[in-house]
Amino acid sequence: MNMIRVAINGFGTIGKRVADAISLQNDMAVSGVVKTRPTFEARLARERGYRLYANTKENVAAFETAGIPVTGTLEDLISESDIVVDCTPGKTGAVNKEQIYVPKNIKAIFQGGEKPNVAEVSFNAMSNYDASIGKSYVRVVSCNTTGLCRTLGAVKKEIGITQVRATMIRRGADSGDSKRGPINAIAPNPPTVPSHHGIDVNTIFPKMNILTSAFIVPTTLMHMHAINVMLEKQATKDEVIALLEKTPRVLLVSAKEGIVSTAQVMEYARELGRSRSDMFEIAVWKESINVVNGNELFYVQAIHQESDVVPENIDAIRAMTGIEKDAKESMRKTDESMRLKIWW
Amino acid sequence: MNMIRVAINGFGTIGKRVADAISLQNDMAVSGVVKTRPTFEARLARERGYRLYANTKENVAAFETAGIPVTGTLEDLISESDIVVDCTPGKTGAVNKEQIYVPKNIKAIFQGGEKPNVAEVSFNAMSNYDASIGKSYVRVVSCNTTGLCRTLGAVKKEIGITQVRATMIRRGADSGDSKRGPINAIAPNPPTVPSHHGIDVNTIFPKMNILTSAFIVPTTLMHMHAINVMLEKQATKDEVIALLEKTPRVLLVSAKEGIVSTAQVMEYARELGRSRSDMFEIAVWKESINVVNGNELFYVQAIHQESDVVPENIDAIRAMTGIEKDAKESMRKTDESMRLKIWW
Repeated sequence: MNMIRVAINGFGTIGKRVADAISLQNDMAVSGVVKTRPTFEARLARERGYRLYANTKENVAAFETAGIPVTGTLEDLISESDIVVDCTPGKTGAVNKEQIYVPKNIKAIFQGGEKPNVAEVSFNAMSNYDASIGKSYVRVVSCNTTGLCRTLGAVKKEIGITQVRATMIRRGADSGDSKRGPINAIAPNPPTVPSHHGIDVNTIFPKMNILTSAFIVPTTLMHMHAINVMLEKQATKDEVIALLEKTPRVLLVSAKEGIVSTAQVMEYARELGRSRSDMFEIAVWKESINVVNGNELFYVQAIHQESDVVPENIDAIRAMTGIEKDAKESMRKTDESMRLKIWW
Repeated sequence: MNMIRVAINGFGTIGKRVADAISLQNDMAVSGVVKTRPTFEARLARERGYRLYANTKENVAAFETAGIPVTGTLEDLISESDIVVDCTPGKTGAVNKEQIYVPKNIKAIFQGGEKPNVAEVSFNAMSNYDASIGKSYVRVVSCNTTGLCRTLGAVKKEIGITQVRATMIRRGADSGDSKRGPINAIAPNPPTVPSHHGIDVNTIFPKMNILTSAFIVPTTLMHMHAINVMLEKQATKDEVIALLEKTPRVLLVSAKEGIVSTAQVMEYARELGRSRSDMFEIAVWKESINVVNGNELFYVQAIHQESDVVPENIDAIRAMTGIEKDAKESMRKTDESMRLKIWW
């Protein structure tokens, strides 16, 4: 079987991680990465051995002036690729689709910053891998939605869910971003309730009764979710703990072990020796899991916003290109190569 | 009528505010304030004209060495007072009660950092003023519980409540505190669900079905609450807005007016020209108020942790000493003198 050639359009927070994750697979390879400007990330891309492309002909000169020559442009790269992973800033993917991907007839994966209608289907590997098999345009849902779908999907499948209410406490900026805030405030964002997060979960679980509210706080490390679930059947706390312990891409953490905040979750990831100290799994506090009155479940989870969608992008490539039609087998390949929690 | 003589034991965040609020009343006066150490706040207390006392004889010398002489000790002050407001750090009030207030036979008000059993009754002016009339030991509930009781109390009284689920996003430290964190993390605190906040609301509304979870984030300005209420009767969003608009000590704020986070709520308080730029009212985002399916209410509110309990302490003094037996009249006197939102 030939290796699938994957173009990465946008080499920022998500793009650079997806490129490195692709490099760990034995059924796909990075055909090249696209940048708009000659930043340090563009230089590092070349130094890591990726072929670098400018997004447009007009921007090629800026790279040459900066001493970071490019191999060509996005159009050149697409002609040598089987699929493109669009990791450009939110809403840019939709423009790229109409202007480039559709005319060039190339399959494309979009990120959660795009509206759902950019794609034929929204993607979460555990929940609806099969729906993306052979598709041309797929959207990997956002980091928060991915986190909700992983744990809620497991609970839904094994126990059943009649209602979800959740509060999202979101990081103000990523670690490498010094432009955004807040520095010292809590912002209801949006100020209206419900927020879009529950609605986005409905792109994966269309019938789920879920309403969310969301806030932004002054931290860079992770998002936090306080989740309240009405279960279809009675269940115990221990049953939910056992369920999440075996759930792929979900990691139970414990305050008893000193993991008392997102700071220690990320410190734990650093100890695992992973690239960029990423935490691809959703961290669920074991102590937070509680079932009240037999069917009302509470739990608290943290989401590493920069990395949890990365394995999802790898699986989406396999589903869309049809090189692996079994969801579990794709997830196993991805997780084994990226050294995620062993669940297989 | 003689002025009620009020001793303030502890002149920190709450004590200094309660002292100043008492000074605005025409039926009570500060007999003196007690400090353990000669801090800048001790010096300011004297400069503002309060009589300063050391907590113990042993600590008097430290004040004299620092050039901040005291009038006497806590025991001296108590013999010249009708009631003491204990504003010492959490759990110290219970010690003071057994060692000093009970032996000296003086009425005492405790703050929310004490356990409920320190007092005969927990206090929230709007909700249960009458229960404290003539009592000797009363506990003003914490800032978060006060915020919950004000808005939930109004909804409970006018519409009825069958269930409350709420997430508290708490400030890491007060503005004048540089010892505490987190600097860059979100901490589930406690890591277990439910948190004690709902249980504390039950000291005011014993039968309310309320479960809460709580987090600490890196901000100093205010706490934030995401509140989800099942209503006893159907109600509309506009009915809830109208209800909270007329509710004492609750202020509707709006993102449309540029109040998009706790930063602007506190900036608004500064524009009101209040002492210490305090926001004594609970700030509820108008846009956040929503009723789903006719009986599920959502709203978001912010709590100025340093000041919202201050008017409650004033009312508790009136109830316990019996100088005002009508809750509304006490609240009106307090709020008019402190220039809170006009509701009378």
